[in-house]
Amino acid sequence: MEKKKFVYSFNEGSKDMKELLGGKGAGLAEMTKIGLPVPFGFTVTTQACSRYYQDDQKLADDLAGEIFEKLAELEEVTGKGFGSKENPLLVSVRSGAKISMPGMMDTILNLGLNDDTAEGLARLTENPRFAYDSYRRFIQMFGEVVMEIEKAKFDAIFDTKKEKEGCRFDVELTAGHLKTIIDDYKALVKKETGSCFPQNPGDQLMEAIKAVFRSWNNKRAILYRQLNGIAEDMGTAVNVQAMVFGNMGETSGTGVAFTRNPANGQTALFGEFLVNAQGEDVVAGVRTPQPIGEMEKAFPEAYKEFLRISKLLENHYLDMQDIEFTIEKNRLFLLQTRNGKRTAAATVKIAVDMVKEGLIDKDTAVMRLEPAMIDQLLHPRFDDGDLGGAERIAKGLPASPGAATGRIYFTASDVVAAAENGIAAILVRLETSPEDLAGMAAAQGILTARGGMTSHAAVVARGMGKCCVSGCGELHIDEEGHRLNIGNTVLKEGDYLSLDGTAGEVLLGQLKTVPAELSGDFETIMGWADELRSLGVRANADNPRDAQQALDFGAEGIGLCRTEHMFFEEERIPAVRRMILADTEKERREALSFLLSYQKDDFKRLYQIMGERPVTIRLLDPPLHEFLPHTEDEIRQLSEQIYVPYEKLAKKVEELHEFNPMMGHRGCRLAVTYPEIAEMQAEAIIAAAIEVRREENLNLVPEIMIPLAGMKNELADVKATVERTAQSVMAREGEQIPYLIGTMIELPRAALTADEIAEEAEFFSFGTNDLTQLTFGFSRDDTGKMIKEYKEKGIFKEDPFQSIDEDGVGWLVETGTKKGRAVRPGIHLGICGEHGGDPKSIEFCDRIGLNYVSCSPFRVPAARLAAAQARIKRLLDGSEKGC
Amino acid sequence: MEKKKFVYSFNEGSKDMKELLGGKGAGLAEMTKIGLPVPFGFTVTTQACSRYYQDDQKLADDLAGEIFEKLAELEEVTGKGFGSKENPLLVSVRSGAKISMPGMMDTILNLGLNDDTAEGLARLTENPRFAYDSYRRFIQMFGEVVMEIEKAKFDAIFDTKKEKEGCRFDVELTAGHLKTIIDDYKALVKKETGSCFPQNPGDQLMEAIKAVFRSWNNKRAILYRQLNGIAEDMGTAVNVQAMVFGNMGETSGTGVAFTRNPANGQTALFGEFLVNAQGEDVVAGVRTPQPIGEMEKAFPEAYKEFLRISKLLENHYLDMQDIEFTIEKNRLFLLQTRNGKRTAAATVKIAVDMVKEGLIDKDTAVMRLEPAMIDQLLHPRFDDGDLGGAERIAKGLPASPGAATGRIYFTASDVVAAAENGIAAILVRLETSPEDLAGMAAAQGILTARGGMTSHAAVVARGMGKCCVSGCGELHIDEEGHRLNIGNTVLKEGDYLSLDGTAGEVLLGQLKTVPAELSGDFETIMGWADELRSLGVRANADNPRDAQQALDFGAEGIGLCRTEHMFFEEERIPAVRRMILADTEKERREALSFLLSYQKDDFKRLYQIMGERPVTIRLLDPPLHEFLPHTEDEIRQLSEQIYVPYEKLAKKVEELHEFNPMMGHRGCRLAVTYPEIAEMQAEAIIAAAIEVRREENLNLVPEIMIPLAGMKNELADVKATVERTAQSVMAREGEQIPYLIGTMIELPRAALTADEIAEEAEFFSFGTNDLTQLTFGFSRDDTGKMIKEYKEKGIFKEDPFQSIDEDGVGWLVETGTKKGRAVRPGIHLGICGEHGGDPKSIEFCDRIGLNYVSCSPFRVPAARLAAAQARIKRLLDGSEKGC
Repeated sequence: MEKKKFVYSFNEGSKDMKELLGGKGAGLAEMTKIGLPVPFGFTVTTQACSRYYQDDQKLADDLAGEIFEKLAELEEVTGKGFGSKENPLLVSVRSGAKISMPGMMDTILNLGLNDDTAEGLARLTENPRFAYDSYRRFIQMFGEVVMEIEKAKFDAIFDTKKEKEGCRFDVELTAGHLKTIIDDYKALVKKETGSCFPQNPGDQLMEAIKAVFRSWNNKRAILYRQLNGIAEDMGTAVNVQAMVFGNMGETSGTGVAFTRNPANGQTALFGEFLVNAQGEDVVAGVRTPQPIGEMEKAFPEAYKEFLRISKLLENHYLDMQDIEFTIEKNRLFLLQTRNGKRTAAATVKIAVDMVKEGLIDKDTAVMRLEPAMIDQLLHPRFDDGDLGGAERIAKGLPASPGAATGRIYFTASDVVAAAENGIAAILVRLETSPEDLAGMAAAQGILTARGGMTSHAAVVARGMGKCCVSGCGELHIDEEGHRLNIGNTVLKEGDYLSLDGTAGEVLLGQLKTVPAELSGDFETIMGWADELRSLGVRANADNPRDAQQALDFGAEGIGLCRTEHMFFEEERIPAVRRMILADTEKERREALSFLLSYQKDDFKRLYQIMGERPVTIRLLDPPLHEFLPHTEDEIRQLSEQIYVPYEKLAKKVEELHEFNPMMGHRGCRLAVTYPEIAEMQAEAIIAAAIEVRREENLNLVPEIMIPLAGMKNELADVKATVERTAQSVMAREGEQIPYLIGTMIELPRAALTADEIAEEAEFFSFGTNDLTQLTFGFSRDDTGKMIKEYKEKGIFKEDPFQSIDEDGVGWLVETGTKKGRAVRPGIHLGICGEHGGDPKSIEFCDRIGLNYVSCSPFRVPAARLAAAQARIKRLLDGSEKGC
Repeated sequence: MEKKKFVYSFNEGSKDMKELLGGKGAGLAEMTKIGLPVPFGFTVTTQACSRYYQDDQKLADDLAGEIFEKLAELEEVTGKGFGSKENPLLVSVRSGAKISMPGMMDTILNLGLNDDTAEGLARLTENPRFAYDSYRRFIQMFGEVVMEIEKAKFDAIFDTKKEKEGCRFDVELTAGHLKTIIDDYKALVKKETGSCFPQNPGDQLMEAIKAVFRSWNNKRAILYRQLNGIAEDMGTAVNVQAMVFGNMGETSGTGVAFTRNPANGQTALFGEFLVNAQGEDVVAGVRTPQPIGEMEKAFPEAYKEFLRISKLLENHYLDMQDIEFTIEKNRLFLLQTRNGKRTAAATVKIAVDMVKEGLIDKDTAVMRLEPAMIDQLLHPRFDDGDLGGAERIAKGLPASPGAATGRIYFTASDVVAAAENGIAAILVRLETSPEDLAGMAAAQGILTARGGMTSHAAVVARGMGKCCVSGCGELHIDEEGHRLNIGNTVLKEGDYLSLDGTAGEVLLGQLKTVPAELSGDFETIMGWADELRSLGVRANADNPRDAQQALDFGAEGIGLCRTEHMFFEEERIPAVRRMILADTEKERREALSFLLSYQKDDFKRLYQIMGERPVTIRLLDPPLHEFLPHTEDEIRQLSEQIYVPYEKLAKKVEELHEFNPMMGHRGCRLAVTYPEIAEMQAEAIIAAAIEVRREENLNLVPEIMIPLAGMKNELADVKATVERTAQSVMAREGEQIPYLIGTMIELPRAALTADEIAEEAEFFSFGTNDLTQLTFGFSRDDTGKMIKEYKEKGIFKEDPFQSIDEDGVGWLVETGTKKGRAVRPGIHLGICGEHGGDPKSIEFCDRIGLNYVSCSPFRVPAARLAAAQARIKRLLDGSEKGC
């Protein structure tokens, strides 16, 4: 068996070895390979990290041996000696996982210094101040990172000394001062650890490497991996690199630069540098760095070289680079290059520019823009200037992105009243219900104490493109008292609060927001995405406003129009209630005939907006009790309003009460029991289509969706009702119009028996919200807290209501797809749960061959992009052959 | 193609042709074949019936032709002529489906009579009274059955005549009287139908046959098929048979007899007969028939012959026979034989006796006893004498069999108080909850307005072996007023009511009940069943009483002990509530430590009863709010009782409130959030086992069941808690004890990912109640009414909560079984939903290879029997090879 190699010199690796060398190591190797001025060094691999954990957190002898071999090579290349008094080799030790992880250990500089080599360095550089400054920095970093001594204790010594010597700035400390600081630091180490500061550079190196490996498992790193879905067994590499010094006086310096502007994407170098400093000084913010452009004056030659190299690196990596460099005595050295992080706006501009520049193709450009970023582009956000100082008082779920600021109100009607008086209002509720719709529409943002990412509040808010923070458990609402408290903060009606729906944060007071602006570049890249994708994108839209929004955002149709939302409007709800309270079918039909003309107009307006694009209308879905009040007071109030005796009303409310309404008398079960409701809706759908066709000469094919069918027979029953009605409307109007009848697959049984169901259904729409609830047995209104806990405990990698659970729910969707197509090969298949807007789920839908996804209007652009990326991935991995 | 044959003479068929000839036709053919005196005739097949419906309810010419061919043959055999004045052939026309269906048309006798043949018959028999009596009977039967004229209209004519002539009995009417009645009957027919009574015997026959075919689709027949699960497309046959006359004077008669006693199974002829009568007179009850034994005096020869034949038929059919016969002028004729219906007790005795007599083998005996019959044997029932006159005022679901009678009370505490005063009480509730347990235990029976066959009331009642009628929608309860009304009947607290839980009936007043008695024959047949079955049978038992009951009924272990029921006991619930209200883990642990000793004793008592039999204990399952009150009054009351401020209590209740508790924070999710609860229970389970092992030297292997796991990770989390606790208890006690940790598969996702879950679980128990709820999206507490509606509309064949839905839920169970065994080949698999006691579901469980079923104690005997029958069926159909 070939011996496994655990340590690679920089000239042995390349950019393709990120898995083994980590991102930083691969970058250093690549730059070395293409001849850029990188201080030499080597990388201890991620496999060595795994080995370290396998060996009970020890560095095995063979591993240590390999490190020392490479160290010897480094001594040879640099001509310096590790631990040599005459010409000491100093190194930096840096962590570097495959994926950049801010939660891990950072950097130890100047390793190799001890009492002797510090003297040697002073002599060699003829700069004792530099030597002692480097040594005291090293002791502190090593002390903090390796020995876990609190930073504050080092700082106290340093600050006391400065004060004592009357120095305002660090640079005013002399070599002598620094020497006494070094003594105090060493005494601190002795006191804290019981041992002397290690003088053997070899020991220093081994301890530093182990500390990096350990840092893989510190709490922050674990949390970061959980939050970002990074595998636990990946491990980190360690980079050991010969030091170059930016702190060797006025001819030295250090800096960081992006090859393009990461905030707006403009094609110009962007960054900053410091003269006579080490890297940590830039980050620490002790001194204010200068803009990168100024470097031309300070280091004209090095600047010219840096410009050349930054261009070269961008062309080499074909992406905007984030570069760290050091100038030692006017000589430029590169310490890191990586793809630079950037805002959504910058991502769009850079990608489009690079296609124009011929650097990348359209596929690559489309792959560069993360779908999640699009939210940033579409929703208002807080002004960055304001955000820094705001007090974050609680964290909930980032239910609907964007930013909102306003005065708080505790009822929908108070919000509506406030909005009518021109007051920006935030609706605060324990949870929202369909009766809060008007208040939600009038509010700037919504804050709820209960409910998850797919709670009523969350779904409706996303549908409205309105900021929402849901499931904020720390929030205690006193609805009667019109007050809330979060921890020790008490707020009353009318107080200001701000919500960051993108981060799920609740902030105290009034903050400035800035509206979204969409650039032409955005249109360009979305156009490319549309050319590339094979998956259709429709929107869930229940009213003309949403439909228009969806169309503006590029939706190709309506995948889900929930008719119940139409029932809650003020002039209709009395008729809905009359229908529910009817004692006879006749009374019920009278109430329904009142609703009919409203429903017909609803659908006409949707058809008019959507033109010949498909519109899928779902028949009434929620249990009837949702349309009645529940508390005694509300029942009394309604009883007076509609002249129905309190007792009768209360009895009906009690009769309709359900223990588990999610699994109650709803969906197509309503239509089985009360066919007259389905008849009214079918009549409205068909009659509206006939009228719009006449008026606008459009070829409409309405899609009528029967919800919650679990059995073929049940679907057949309701289908017969719809068909009978459609035939009679068409006969009355003397006009035939094509239409489709399909169903939502949202019960596990429906997916399992999709072959039977497809005998009756002309299309399926997978309702993955309910399917997820039932497959997991999770009520989305009740398990918000629990899902959070499960994520924290690592039981869930992802919230299954956000991203489809491929093993369980996804399997059902795929099975339903196969079974449906087996019986009805041309059956049209879509998905209309929240997952329809989630990139990972969209990739899944594309892979299993659905025809379209449908999501809330504000998620349509992200869905278009995700669909394109899914297709590109399939082309890349060969599961679909390119054209 | 060979021409299909639609009509069979009696000498062309046999007993194996039931499908084609119907039960009656096959019986007549068989008797003819073995040489018994059967009046000749022919059978028009069930396929002819299908043909009739295919041909738009017409009798096609070829079909009619075939019938007339057979009629000619009949004329030849009998030497009589159809329509002949001189020697008229008269026939009976009877329906006869494959399965006997009381909902269908019965019989038309004397067909072939008209004005002329009646005269001829009078001359031929020299008995004008007989001839006219036969003719008037024929007109009435034909008028009612074929022409659908109301019976009352004929009766009115007949009774008026009797009154006018001053006759008390029918026999007092003379030939002359009967002739005028015939005239009046014919006038009635003319008036009602506009046509004369058909005089052509051929027309009469065709109309009668069509009427039988039509009767297949009358409402009663359809309903009967729905209720009994008989296929719609089976059709009925028609039997046309030469008349013999029991009404030809004192040497003639007619009767019905069973070869053994159908009430108690005793080996003695059982039946009755009438002299000078036609068959209908026996049924109509106008005259009181004589016991069959008396026949020896009336018809000594015919009686001897009948004894011989009845023995011969029993030996031929190897089962107790129900025989119809007629004696014409001292000559015995057989008109029907079929397997006789009998009570459960008779079934048991006859089967055991027949094995002893060498007539049948044990397999056959075991197959004879229907599992559903066992309920009759185990539960008290109403005294048959009393039941006839009782007023049935409502129908609900037959939730738990048996009979109960008592005074009604509307709260559990009122029932308890009544029971303490020696009053037999019926608990009437809108629905029951765990807080009603004490009242349910104290009640004779339970009646609820809501909830299905698997509602809380139903499940608990069956567990207790207590009569229950649930989901009685006609019931309106005024809980505050302590009254109920059903239709126009108003009952108040303390009024008498009776419940028939086997039929789901509510009866007014107080009825006598008789207790169950188990015979030695029952033990014998159950012993044979146990030898035959391969599927294990355990019981669901939560307390020592149930465990003892289960053991007495032959359970081989406890398949499900629901620990939450233990939490509701009076001395414990305060500690449970303290635990829930605890602000800190410490307080919670204090409350739990109080519960620990109770739990340990619970488990010790179960182990002591069950010995070394397996006991599966499920960790706490319901959401915590089930242990708290919900209404403001109850909260106030509890607040005072436990000295917790109302506000705090109310806040906790609100915090714990769930919209869909079935899918909320329950099952293993509780143990993830509050590991200390699982720790307490695990400690009690292990410590109890160690103590019982020490005290009684028993080798116990407790089975710890973690409920509601949907993901491997979730199970692993709780399993770790249980194992940690078990290890620490065993270390403390200095004793190792084997134990198993498994899970309930009750979420669709758990079944779909059973392979992953089996990596952690050492056994599975399929919780098919919840699995059915989630697969269908049916809340069993809310969909009772709907399921009833679905059954009525034919959407459901069977209630999926009673009998497992093989296509959906069953598929999941089978998939879970396969996936579980693939990963852990020896994994022990059972089922513990209500389906564990349902014969059809047990057959399914046997077929897919589960190891055991677990059901409520009272269903254990039926389950043992059903398991044996399932195995026998597998042996018969060859899917398992016999030994």
